[in-house]
Amino acid sequence: MDKNLLGNNVIAQIGILVHDIEKTSQVYAEFFGMMKPEWSLTDAVDKAKTEYKSEPTEARAKLAFFDMGSLQLELIEPDEHPSTWREHLNEHGEGPHHIAFFIKGMEEKVKLLELNGMALTQKGEYTGGRYAYMDTFKELKVMVELLENDN
Amino acid sequence: MDKNLLGNNVIAQIGILVHDIEKTSQVYAEFFGMMKPEWSLTDAVDKAKTEYKSEPTEARAKLAFFDMGSLQLELIEPDEHPSTWREHLNEHGEGPHHIAFFIKGMEEKVKLLELNGMALTQKGEYTGGRYAYMDTFKELKVMVELLENDN
Repeated sequence: MDKNLLGNNVIAQIGILVHDIEKTSQVYAEFFGMMKPEWSLTDAVDKAKTEYKSEPTEARAKLAFFDMGSLQLELIEPDEHPSTWREHLNEHGEGPHHIAFFIKGMEEKVKLLELNGMALTQKGEYTGGRYAYMDTFKELKVMVELLENDN
Repeated sequence: MDKNLLGNNVIAQIGILVHDIEKTSQVYAEFFGMMKPEWSLTDAVDKAKTEYKSEPTEARAKLAFFDMGSLQLELIEPDEHPSTWREHLNEHGEGPHHIAFFIKGMEEKVKLLELNGMALTQKGEYTGGRYAYMDTFKELKVMVELLENDN
């Protein structure tokens, strides 16, 4: 394996899949004594250009973020369209889905990981940036999400 | 539910269960361009006073820690004796097991979580402190570990 594939080892997010983001956000807010954040919906496929297993998908998810120290805990409630979120939730139930890292140069990083045997599972765009879920499970025992912001 | 049960919302560790800590530590070290840490073995039951489901257990685990930003990623390879680590690994395979938070006043915090419906799953001691795994899965969709250091 090449070394230092991401150029960064700071965990930025932990993503957790849930069935009911309203309910679980409320529990988190009470448990940790924090404000319950509003969830947001990921953009539709025409804007987000979402691809799952190399095919466009209409999948969207509700996301809610809690600041837990230097990183964010992200709750994810996916819809029923094909996505890594929906597949993982159906196969494994609720629970941790990924850890995320900010990187620079998305296309090159995705290629580098692919060359090292870790496939691109899903990618998409959001206002001001883009993400890619890489199948690092065999190597790292957890999925890695790459995040790149334009600013 | 009572509010702000831990008095802290800073994630200190993410714990990931593995079958082979040597192998996975090496992969992490290369992937992130970090030094491969030596693993350490948790103390034996006479010193650690390990209890799983309210019964003493001889279970021990190999632990390896990577600094990933403000938190540690902890790899855990349990032995075959009964523990939350072994049970989770057998039932769910390799992958994330818990997120950990430093707290003050272990006995009171455990009681407070129990009063709020979250059971103590496993506890033990280490040099300079103690830990407790609480069954927060139903509420938070992930297990929470409480950590208390004397200093």
